[in-house]
Amino acid sequence: MNNAKGLTQEMLTRNVNGVSVADLHKTIDVIKATPAIAKFKFRVHNQWLEAGQNISTADKFYGAGGEHSRTKPFVLQADEPPILLGKDSAANPVEHLLHALASCLTTSMVYHASARGVHIQEVESSLEGDLDLQGFLKLDKNVRNGYQGIRVKFKIKADVPDEKLQEIVQLGPEHSPVFDSLTQGVPVSVTAERL
Amino acid sequence: MNNAKGLTQEMLTRNVNGVSVADLHKTIDVIKATPAIAKFKFRVHNQWLEAGQNISTADKFYGAGGEHSRTKPFVLQADEPPILLGKDSAANPVEHLLHALASCLTTSMVYHASARGVHIQEVESSLEGDLDLQGFLKLDKNVRNGYQGIRVKFKIKADVPDEKLQEIVQLGPEHSPVFDSLTQGVPVSVTAERL
Repeated sequence: MNNAKGLTQEMLTRNVNGVSVADLHKTIDVIKATPAIAKFKFRVHNQWLEAGQNISTADKFYGAGGEHSRTKPFVLQADEPPILLGKDSAANPVEHLLHALASCLTTSMVYHASARGVHIQEVESSLEGDLDLQGFLKLDKNVRNGYQGIRVKFKIKADVPDEKLQEIVQLGPEHSPVFDSLTQGVPVSVTAERL
Repeated sequence: MNNAKGLTQEMLTRNVNGVSVADLHKTIDVIKATPAIAKFKFRVHNQWLEAGQNISTADKFYGAGGEHSRTKPFVLQADEPPILLGKDSAANPVEHLLHALASCLTTSMVYHASARGVHIQEVESSLEGDLDLQGFLKLDKNVRNGYQGIRVKFKIKADVPDEKLQEIVQLGPEHSPVFDSLTQGVPVSVTAERL
């Protein structure tokens, strides 16, 4: 028996790809009724250690009309490899940016595939981005500081025809907050005061 | 005694903020002589676990004309909190994006302050970004999927006058690859094949 959204009762009561489809649709219904609860604020706090080493913590965030916090903060490290004058104790900031993109594309694809009842067995992705240090070092004004381009290559195992596979993959870029932020740009304000 | 760049011999032979100023200027000189070695390619490989859980590894990268790898790959995790249908085992993708931005702004500021011989004692930053889930869920076509805005607030301890402090902070956004990528946008290609 199908409900109004074309989802069978069986789909609504179980997890698809580890995502509770019932909870997903409950979230959508609640936001439709009260759009203001869709507003989220995510945060990190960063502390410099030395040279290229620093550490962020992610804990509290605002969403669904209230504050949330984790049992304990997640600790995220950063450093640079020796060739970039660091001690290579952690991934560097531009690698973290690729991780943010990879993880967001993957989760966005999986959640929206789940909402459509599409079962996915495996997902892998390889990301590569081009950077020219002449930008960072201001040695050539025609070279930008940031990534010149990023290539994302997915490998997916799912019981769907080839055409459907491409459609499923596109659910990532169509919905991902990090993909949209990175491809379209975000206004960022930077202010400072004395510690 | 000052050299041609106005840097004293004492500055060149020691670390400023943990950064070897001599190595930094050696890098700049080498890139000036052979601009092609400024080209870098950074990479991550991501694997989906279930629902909002996935894991990236960062290891090999290309730079300075050759391939580099780490002793062992750095492992970066991602998940979503329960309110976003995850198991809260790690920071989520949009928090990782904030970490990438915080760490890159900080390192860019510290490296360029070091090049100028400016000693910094402490740096902290708090980042907050606004997201509206109506974008991700395609409930309102006027709401974007990504961050609507990000605020970065630095707190800095350094023996410089107030005016100089603001100048030092601006070295971050002026040089940071992640800041440039995120504020100006990056072309991202997404392709897929069967696993």
